[in-house]
Amino acid sequence: TLKLNPTTESPPKPPADHRELGISSSLFTSSIYSPGSPLFLPNGAYVFNRLVSFLRAQYALFGFREVVTPTIYKKSLWERSGHWENYADDMYEVTGRGARGTKNNTATEQDQDEEFGLKPMNCPGHCLLFGSEKRSYRDLPIRYADFSPLHRNEISGALSGLTRVRRFHQDDGHIFCRNSQILEEISNTLRFIGMVYDTFKLGPYKLVLSTRPEDHYIGTVNEWDKAEAQLREALDASGREWSINDGDGAFYGPKIDIILKDSDGKEHQTATVQLDFQLPQRFELSYDTPESGTDRPVLIHRAIFGSLERFMALLIEHYNGRFPFWIAPRPCIILSVTDRDDVKQYAKDVQQTLSGLRHYENEQIQPARLDKVHIPVDIDTSARSLQKKILEAKNKGYNHIVVIGPRDLDISPRTVTVEVHAQADAEDACKLQIAGHSGIPRFENYTVNILLES
Amino acid sequence: TLKLNPTTESPPKPPADHRELGISSSLFTSSIYSPGSPLFLPNGAYVFNRLVSFLRAQYALFGFREVVTPTIYKKSLWERSGHWENYADDMYEVTGRGARGTKNNTATEQDQDEEFGLKPMNCPGHCLLFGSEKRSYRDLPIRYADFSPLHRNEISGALSGLTRVRRFHQDDGHIFCRNSQILEEISNTLRFIGMVYDTFKLGPYKLVLSTRPEDHYIGTVNEWDKAEAQLREALDASGREWSINDGDGAFYGPKIDIILKDSDGKEHQTATVQLDFQLPQRFELSYDTPESGTDRPVLIHRAIFGSLERFMALLIEHYNGRFPFWIAPRPCIILSVTDRDDVKQYAKDVQQTLSGLRHYENEQIQPARLDKVHIPVDIDTSARSLQKKILEAKNKGYNHIVVIGPRDLDISPRTVTVEVHAQADAEDACKLQIAGHSGIPRFENYTVNILLES
Ligand SMILES: [Zn+2]
Ligand SMILES: [Zn+2]
Repeated sequence: TLKLNPTTESPPKPPADHRELGISSSLFTSSIYSPGSPLFLPNGAYVFNRLVSFLRAQYALFGFREVVTPTIYKKSLWERSGHWENYADDMYEVTGRGARGTKNNTATEQDQDEEFGLKPMNCPGHCLLFGSEKRSYRDLPIRYADFSPLHRNEISGALSGLTRVRRFHQDDGHIFCRNSQILEEISNTLRFIGMVYDTFKLGPYKLVLSTRPEDHYIGTVNEWDKAEAQLREALDASGREWSINDGDGAFYGPKIDIILKDSDGKEHQTATVQLDFQLPQRFELSYDTPESGTDRPVLIHRAIFGSLERFMALLIEHYNGRFPFWIAPRPCIILSVTDRDDVKQYAKDVQQTLSGLRHYENEQIQPARLDKVHIPVDIDTSARSLQKKILEAKNKGYNHIVVIGPRDLDISPRTVTVEVHAQADAEDACKLQIAGHSGIPRFENYTVNILLES
Repeated sequence: TLKLNPTTESPPKPPADHRELGISSSLFTSSIYSPGSPLFLPNGAYVFNRLVSFLRAQYALFGFREVVTPTIYKKSLWERSGHWENYADDMYEVTGRGARGTKNNTATEQDQDEEFGLKPMNCPGHCLLFGSEKRSYRDLPIRYADFSPLHRNEISGALSGLTRVRRFHQDDGHIFCRNSQILEEISNTLRFIGMVYDTFKLGPYKLVLSTRPEDHYIGTVNEWDKAEAQLREALDASGREWSINDGDGAFYGPKIDIILKDSDGKEHQTATVQLDFQLPQRFELSYDTPESGTDRPVLIHRAIFGSLERFMALLIEHYNGRFPFWIAPRPCIILSVTDRDDVKQYAKDVQQTLSGLRHYENEQIQPARLDKVHIPVDIDTSARSLQKKILEAKNKGYNHIVVIGPRDLDISPRTVTVEVHAQADAEDACKLQIAGHSGIPRFENYTVNILLES
């Protein structure tokens, strides 16, 4: 049998808690004014954005196109989607304060439907997008991706860190396709999930198929059987271990859950792939068939990370706070051995070279190119002892520590020495991120000489 | 005198309307369920994300770090910031439906302060972030950037396209600095603004300084005088034309507005730089001074694009729907002359080469690198006549049209011909975006031969 989380040979004891690591690495904070809505500090936002960028880069490969959709919709939308009734307690209600009479509105405006729901999901909005244009079978599959913030009204007693929250983001995706396209879409989604989890060295994971419930379901048995057959075929072809939860599907369609076991032995449901025969019906979605008729598309909900907040919590604990280089908010710091002016200046040059910001000093700033990879390299040229500075840098979890002393000034051509500090898989990270970045080479040993430009 | 919008030699008649162009280019749509909250279709989201990516790439140059902050905060936060009172009619109120008694809550949870405000601005959240850690003068300036969606309850009669909306995004930034750092921060902000507007060939624009109001203001005359002197010095050094609106500043600080005149002669207030002596006081922010005391930081609100939605509307009209290559959602389409299988296959190869997706065909998908520039190249290999396909492609506003015929198969080494279709400044765009992308060369003539890889 496969061993879960093979990269974590022996789980740290006591196990890492993402809330403590979140504080010590300045990743996020919380506030009495926003229970369940964590505030990401710059370091946390950096990791967050890296995760989003990573998925965005893959979306082109998998045919997803991103959309930007509203945060609040009128109550009538949520009634149409069924959320207002079925999701009642978990939703936030929004009203314009002006509409309540505070504002000097005309009668017409006051009479309007001014009751909104704060979205807990993106699906209804994506149905509106699909329905906003006439669709032909030639256009399908249509795949929308959305990183919008979502809100669910969890009771305050349960709120904690990044895992029990009221506000979160999903790497949400919705595929509108024909019945005959289910197999290929599910197969590609499972490949996508595998690629992502392999990149982060998470897993192995369990795939669990939930099938048609006995009594209460929409559509025909034949429709369900055909869809489930395609899911089974995709699962077989995935080469991953999978099992069945018979009859455990939602009334509106079968689904596949991805169950990850963390180093603590705790299971997490992260990615999910959910078929939906209902929403396309509620929103009366259709496309023109080759036979000059119309048909209703199937909707596939899918998320790879699931909740970005929860996925970050998992990564923080999985890496024990030491992120791989390519998503690390503290990838590198430059320390000066002395506070001699020429050493400090040289340290600053090294910082600028490694971070790719050398031209910032010029009066005439040229726009940075969009494909420029920027590494947030920090610097400490304070007059404190080198030992103190190294200790602090290690405590802060920098991946690399570069020490600059007077002797470095004499070396020609100028190079710096990088001390690699207890980090997971720099190599893979570099493959993904850094190749092509002139300042930082691939790290293979614990000491690397970097040739500085110019 | 400088001519406004020199790139638009003669304004189109009738002037372009971003709402019509938005529909014909499939950029965005609206819904009865979300008045004032436009839904960005994939093409519009592409432009939106390009604009965000562009700014993000520059943030590293200007020392901004992005944060991710909540959408709703308790009423008590907005009371503290003053928004609950001063911004009353423009804010949305949020309540958990469960908290109203629908949910089977315990008494403790029902008693809680469960009234929230949907944020109209990011500033209070950024003040919480600044206040979440102890700050020293050495840490300043601290510069936060945030692309969060914001909501303001505009009356429904005024809603229109991307310019009069209830939901929008700002390229919002807040600088916390010492009084003595105002000059440098304002100077850098003005350089940043200049760089961005030059890139989009917008402008020239007017800079307008609004100074201390006669009667109602916080702080001392001396504080205002010192701050205003720094603003004047920065304006002088900017090399741009500027004027004064005497006494027109807010009671909490002086500001600089950027006024852009569009091709229609209409003026738009876009970027803004606003000093604030009040919020740091309301949130009791402080930092340790070199003299072992504490002092209150100055807060500078600043936005370069202003509202991203409004900036997009401006760009759509400014370019008359023909975006520069590097932000164009339809940069290129491949058309086949016939529907012969070998021609169609070759057309597909060309598409994959130009878009950088050639390896998608492989069974084993490798993750795309984050610095990979992906060009959304479309393809039309339908059996319709070439003329029809070209006409449709031109109507859809593709920047480049690549035609593939049987004769292209015989050329060795294989090249394709790109017909450049009436587009604004491909060259500059390529400089920013494309240099280094192997598939697409710099366009200098109306016909370009592209050497295909492998
Ligand atoms: Zn969904
Ligand atoms: Zn602000």
